[in-house]
Amino acid sequence: MGEFMTEPQQGLARRGSVGPQGRHGMLPGPAGPLDGHEAVVLLERTRALVDLELRRALDSLPGSMRRIALYHFGWEQADGTPAAGNAGKAIRPALVLTAARALGGRQSTAVRAAAAVELVHNFTLLHDDVMDRDTTRRHRPTAWTVFGDADAILAGDALQALAQQLLAEDPHPASGAAAARLAACVVELCAGQHADTAMERRGPHDVTLDEVLAMAEAKTGALLGCACALGALYAGADEADVEALDAFGREAGLAFQLIDDVIGIWGDPSRTGKPAGADLMARKKSLPVVAALASGTPAAADLAELYQGPSVEGEVERTVLAVEQAGGRDWAQLQAADRMGRAMQELSRAIPDPQAAGGLLALAEFVTRRTT
Amino acid sequence: MGEFMTEPQQGLARRGSVGPQGRHGMLPGPAGPLDGHEAVVLLERTRALVDLELRRALDSLPGSMRRIALYHFGWEQADGTPAAGNAGKAIRPALVLTAARALGGRQSTAVRAAAAVELVHNFTLLHDDVMDRDTTRRHRPTAWTVFGDADAILAGDALQALAQQLLAEDPHPASGAAAARLAACVVELCAGQHADTAMERRGPHDVTLDEVLAMAEAKTGALLGCACALGALYAGADEADVEALDAFGREAGLAFQLIDDVIGIWGDPSRTGKPAGADLMARKKSLPVVAALASGTPAAADLAELYQGPSVEGEVERTVLAVEQAGGRDWAQLQAADRMGRAMQELSRAIPDPQAAGGLLALAEFVTRRTT
Repeated sequence: MGEFMTEPQQGLARRGSVGPQGRHGMLPGPAGPLDGHEAVVLLERTRALVDLELRRALDSLPGSMRRIALYHFGWEQADGTPAAGNAGKAIRPALVLTAARALGGRQSTAVRAAAAVELVHNFTLLHDDVMDRDTTRRHRPTAWTVFGDADAILAGDALQALAQQLLAEDPHPASGAAAARLAACVVELCAGQHADTAMERRGPHDVTLDEVLAMAEAKTGALLGCACALGALYAGADEADVEALDAFGREAGLAFQLIDDVIGIWGDPSRTGKPAGADLMARKKSLPVVAALASGTPAAADLAELYQGPSVEGEVERTVLAVEQAGGRDWAQLQAADRMGRAMQELSRAIPDPQAAGGLLALAEFVTRRTT
Repeated sequence: MGEFMTEPQQGLARRGSVGPQGRHGMLPGPAGPLDGHEAVVLLERTRALVDLELRRALDSLPGSMRRIALYHFGWEQADGTPAAGNAGKAIRPALVLTAARALGGRQSTAVRAAAAVELVHNFTLLHDDVMDRDTTRRHRPTAWTVFGDADAILAGDALQALAQQLLAEDPHPASGAAAARLAACVVELCAGQHADTAMERRGPHDVTLDEVLAMAEAKTGALLGCACALGALYAGADEADVEALDAFGREAGLAFQLIDDVIGIWGDPSRTGKPAGADLMARKKSLPVVAALASGTPAAADLAELYQGPSVEGEVERTVLAVEQAGGRDWAQLQAADRMGRAMQELSRAIPDPQAAGGLLALAEFVTRRTT
C-alpha cells in the first residue's frame, strides 16, 4: 500500500514531490508531474483498498445476485469459477480517496464511500448495457448476454441498494450527507442516460450543442463530481469546498467525454479495440459530431446528409473528413482544454496549495490525456 | 385528516374503541374491529398524508423522469395532462405510520419513511412489469408499454434513488437505520424476483414448497416487514420490537400471498378482473399449485402432467379440480391462517396491549381477508 495508505501529514510530505517544481527521484526517468505515473499509482492503490470493501459488500448479497455481480466485476466466470478480475480503472473511487486526502481527511475512513461510488457506477453499467444492447464490457460478454435482461436489471438494482446500504451503515459523520448526494446523483445519471437514448432517436438537426453538453455532464460529469464531493464531505470540508470539488469533477468529466469522443473518431483502432469510425457508422451524436453539424459550414451540410441515411460501406473516410472539416475535432479539443482549465480553477479554489492538489490533478490529467 | 393525524395520547384514546371489546359507535352498523372499515379509514388517511410527500419528491425529479413517474403513479396521462390518480392502496405506507403510532411514536415524523417505502414498492413494480412483460397495472397500460423498456427501467432506478434521498435528508434520528434496512430489503426483493422468474422456467417437479415459500417471503413479505420495522424504528422502539414488527409484517405478507394465490385460482373473474384460471393456464407455480404437486396424490400426478404441456382450451376446470383434489386449496388456506397466527404472536410480543395493536391488526386482516 505504501504512502497511499498513510495519513495526511505523511501524505502531504509525499505530495511535496509532485508539485509544479517537478519530481525528485520518486519515479524513474524524465517524468514530469503529469506523465500519468502518479495517477497509475493512485489507481492501483485505490483498487487494492476498495476491492476489499467491494468484495465484502458483494459477498453479503444473496447467491443469485452475488453470482451476477461477481461476473460483472470480473471476479468470477459465468459458471462461478474464479476469474483473474478486471473491474475497471477505479477512477471514481480514486477520486473519492484522493479528494479526502487532499482536503486533510483520513482516506482510510472514506473507503466505504469510495466503494459505494464504484457500486453505483457499476449498477449504471449493468443497466446501460441492457438498454444500449452493448454486448462487450471490459473485454468480456456483458452480464445481460450471459444471464438475461431480467437478471442484469435485478443485479443492477441490488448494487444500487448495496451502495446505499454501505453508506447507511457507515458510522462516519458525513455518511448521511454523502448518501443524499449520491442518491441525487443517481437521479441525474438516469436523466442523462434518458437524454442520451432519446437524442439517438432524433434527426441530426434536432440536437443542439447545449443539449448534448448537458447530457454529457449528467451522464459522465455528475458521478465524477459526486465522487470528488464525497471525498470532500468525508474530509469534513465546508459546503463551498464540497461544491468546488463537485464542479472540478464535473468539468474534468466533461473534458474526459470530449477527448473520449475524439478518440472514438480519430483514435487508432488497434488501440481502441473498435473499428475506425464505428461511432460515426452507428450515427452516434457525439460531441464533435454535434459541434460539426452546428458549424454552418459546407462540410456540416455534407455530414448532415450522411447522418440522415443509414451507414454505407466505404463511407467512413468521407464522414470522418466531414466532421474534421466542419471543425468538430478542433472544437472538441479546445472545449476539452477549456473544461480542464475550469476544472483546475475550481480545484484551486478549494485547495490553493498546488502540492495538496497534486493527486487530483494527476487523476484529471490521466483520464483526459489518454490518447489510445 | 382527523384522528389519524393526532398524536399518541389521543391516538390511544381513539384506539380504545377498536379493541376486542368491540366498537362504540365510531362506525355504523354491527361492525366488529376486523370488518375492514378501520383499515379503509387508515388507508385513505395514509394516502392523503403520504401523497403530499410523494408528489413533492416526484416534483424534484428532472422532467423526463418525473413524467414517467407521474404516469406510473396515475397522476398524469401519458401526454402529461393531469389524471384522476390511482396510486394503489397505500398498504405499505399505512403499515409504517400505523406501526409508528402503535409503538408510541409521532406518525407525522414518519411520513417521509412511509413515502420512501412506497417509492421502493413502485420502483419494483416498474421493473417487474418490464421483466414479466405485464401490460396492465392498476387498470392502465404499464409504463414500459407507453415509454419503452429503457425509460421504465430508468424511472425505476430514479425512484429507488429518490427513496434513499428522502431518508438521507430526513433529520429524524432513526433515518440512518431505516435507510440501511430499506436498502437491505431491496436486495431481498431483487433476490425474490429472481427466484420467481427462475422458478417459472423450471419443470413442475423441480420446485419445492420450501423454495416457493422462501420466494414469496422475499418478494412479498420482506417489504411489508420492512414497512412495519421502519415504523417501529421511527417510534424509537428497541431492536427486539423492531424485529418483532418486521416478523409480523413478513408473516402477514405471506398470508396475503397465499390468499392472493387462492383468489387467483378460485376467485370470481368478474371481481378479480382476470379470466378464471388465468394463472393456471399460464402455468404459474403459485403456492397452492406447488403444494398440490408435492402432495403425492393421484390428482398431483394429473396436475403435473397438465403442467408439463402447454395450456389447452377447455382444460381450465380439470386443472382447477386437480389442484383442489390434491389439497392445494385447503393447504393454502390453513397455511394462511397459520401465518396470520404467527403474525399476531409477533405483534403481541412487541405490542401486548391489543388496543394499541388494533390498527396494525386491522391492516393485516384487511390485506388477507379480501375475497374478490
